[in-house]
Amino acid sequence: MIRIDTKYLGSFLERMPTGLDEEVSKAQASLEQKNCKGSEYTGWVELVDSIDENLMAQMTEVSNEIREKAEALLVIGIGGSYLGAKAAMNFIGGDFPVYFLGQNISSHTWSQVREALKDKTFYVNFISKSGGTLEPALAFRFVRTLLEEKYNEEWHRYVVATTDREKGKLKGLADRLGITSFVVPDDVGGRYSVLTPVGLLPLLCAGVDVRSLMQGAKAEREDILSGQSDALQYATIRNALYRGGKAVEMMVTYNPALNDLCEWWKQLFGESEGKSSQGIFPASASFTTDLHSLGQFIQDGTDFLMETVLWVEKENEDFEIPRFDEDTDGLDYLAGKSLNWINEMASEGTMKAHLAGGTPNLKIIVPARDARSLGALFYFFEYACGVSALVQGVNPFDQPGVEDYKRSVKELLVKGI
Amino acid sequence: MIRIDTKYLGSFLERMPTGLDEEVSKAQASLEQKNCKGSEYTGWVELVDSIDENLMAQMTEVSNEIREKAEALLVIGIGGSYLGAKAAMNFIGGDFPVYFLGQNISSHTWSQVREALKDKTFYVNFISKSGGTLEPALAFRFVRTLLEEKYNEEWHRYVVATTDREKGKLKGLADRLGITSFVVPDDVGGRYSVLTPVGLLPLLCAGVDVRSLMQGAKAEREDILSGQSDALQYATIRNALYRGGKAVEMMVTYNPALNDLCEWWKQLFGESEGKSSQGIFPASASFTTDLHSLGQFIQDGTDFLMETVLWVEKENEDFEIPRFDEDTDGLDYLAGKSLNWINEMASEGTMKAHLAGGTPNLKIIVPARDARSLGALFYFFEYACGVSALVQGVNPFDQPGVEDYKRSVKELLVKGI
Repeated sequence: MIRIDTKYLGSFLERMPTGLDEEVSKAQASLEQKNCKGSEYTGWVELVDSIDENLMAQMTEVSNEIREKAEALLVIGIGGSYLGAKAAMNFIGGDFPVYFLGQNISSHTWSQVREALKDKTFYVNFISKSGGTLEPALAFRFVRTLLEEKYNEEWHRYVVATTDREKGKLKGLADRLGITSFVVPDDVGGRYSVLTPVGLLPLLCAGVDVRSLMQGAKAEREDILSGQSDALQYATIRNALYRGGKAVEMMVTYNPALNDLCEWWKQLFGESEGKSSQGIFPASASFTTDLHSLGQFIQDGTDFLMETVLWVEKENEDFEIPRFDEDTDGLDYLAGKSLNWINEMASEGTMKAHLAGGTPNLKIIVPARDARSLGALFYFFEYACGVSALVQGVNPFDQPGVEDYKRSVKELLVKGI
Repeated sequence: MIRIDTKYLGSFLERMPTGLDEEVSKAQASLEQKNCKGSEYTGWVELVDSIDENLMAQMTEVSNEIREKAEALLVIGIGGSYLGAKAAMNFIGGDFPVYFLGQNISSHTWSQVREALKDKTFYVNFISKSGGTLEPALAFRFVRTLLEEKYNEEWHRYVVATTDREKGKLKGLADRLGITSFVVPDDVGGRYSVLTPVGLLPLLCAGVDVRSLMQGAKAEREDILSGQSDALQYATIRNALYRGGKAVEMMVTYNPALNDLCEWWKQLFGESEGKSSQGIFPASASFTTDLHSLGQFIQDGTDFLMETVLWVEKENEDFEIPRFDEDTDGLDYLAGKSLNWINEMASEGTMKAHLAGGTPNLKIIVPARDARSLGALFYFFEYACGVSALVQGVNPFDQPGVEDYKRSVKELLVKGI
């Protein structure tokens, strides 16, 4: 379903390192055969082959209860426990308010969320494999005081946990208090978990068509298995450019509804590849906005960028440029034109100029801004990322560096500076 | 007023290239003596020496009218015409709704802003030197239809222009219709213009203490001239690290109220330095959020990052970690502690871990989240940026690469693909 356009790679396309195609094929085979690095975390690969109807029914029941009984949902989770759901809500929209908390330690953030929730009835979806991660656990302490004020001993009836199948602090709490729980599968890491209850339950609450999302992912997987998908080509091209010295990949959007998807993409690729002192640094930009900020650098600055443009083929809205009596801005030649067409010309003209300036551009085309397309896109990126990191010789599914800073912070929290 | 802490630069601090201090001194002298590259655009340097009371009175009168007669202000502008005001509102807050438009060509954005404004009375501040830049000019066409629907022939009474002193399309329109106008000084480029009417008028409307903002900038300038400021040291250190192979500077915040400031900073430095195939690539991250996304890469990935942590010493809010009957998350050792203290320990622990992983960390300390501190910070960065780009041998005040993509887009808009 997801296609790529290589037109603005220019001569970069001709300079492919020999043997890279074979490396990509090998990496894919090891992923499918589950003998790759980190193979114990490849449950996401075939997760999309079928929908677990039992699980879907349970999630639907819980989300219906939340939508009927409350005015909002508060999702508490960090990293892979919120980025996918947030990206999906940004991309598709929703018809029920969902707030996010537990992503930082900022008193400013808590004061804003508390203000937003104080006069509302709300449920909490606490998403954490362990339940002991600093940010979401602290957030849950604050939110628990709020729930206790509102509901007294009944507070825990307004909590839904998404956590480990059997161990961990959150699982323990949920079992003791009889809190409704959903399972984060053992063989799926946080950044590959958007199509598990981690992402699906909040999305059901938001009113997103989760079944179409899953079907889109399945369709993309089928395309991959039948050799019809461009996911492997994306993995190949970015590694070819990386070997040619392009060490920063900038994911570019032309519609702010795709911006949170870039944040999800940055975690997926940055955490999967950024190890052993190598990896493509993931950055993002919102165009045309950031053309007036980063455009100069992309055009003429240090020559280590590649650009990947995420383009939606069929947008949900469009407007015609109005005409007035007098051509006060010199843009009457655009009067009557479609705003989306102008946006498309801006993207094409920009890719052309950036290529001329030495920055290769790859375009990823998403059919529409809907659940099915998004499901396909999630899977496209997950698969390309797994393969790409394997080509780079690293384990795509661990994050040892995250543990490093956590240890260092813990030490200060216990002993002080 | 703004201080830097070099503790987590570790041994990088000892590896300063010889002669760099002298290069920085020379660059500063050429900036002050106005014989540097692009010296015709250095009006911002001494702009803060005194407040133009006449201009301040006019802006105050107009902003009072807007605050009294309308429910919101809509700012139309792109790049330097909105980033500073947006950053300031994010940093300080405000007591009057301000919306931004004209930063992209997205139909989704226009449909959202139109929805937000449709039942409100509002004024428009159209900020553009020329009035013909694609994004804000198209936005103004849409907004004009909305104003005409609301106010008929009186529509232009709800528009305030911030534009060129004498030439350009917007100036022409303003003169013909008698639209109130403020001037973008000839010798101040967009990305250095936040302390001119470009930033000040929207900030007065938002209820920001603009006089304190200007006084803060003046205080920082006085510190620079008396050798008390750390701005030159910031310019020195980042160039030293750059010469040592750190080609990406990541500006890091620990409070989302500083995130838009990073966007302003990215334009300032990216557009000033990113030319002649060189320059430090400006990126940003919101911590601890993005530690669970980019943290792995910073710790263990490609070794070309430097980190600059923007830290507010005195926050506006704080909360105590609550304790419950049972230590369900293992965090009872933090019960009773201040959330801001935990955030600070997280920042210190993270800098320590990242330095150990090979990424040098510089901390920039801002006294408080108020207008005076922000004014000082704006000037600190502008001055450091001018000097830094001069040290890199480029003109800090032009943006030839932006013209390249504009030409390319215009060609497609006229002729099609």
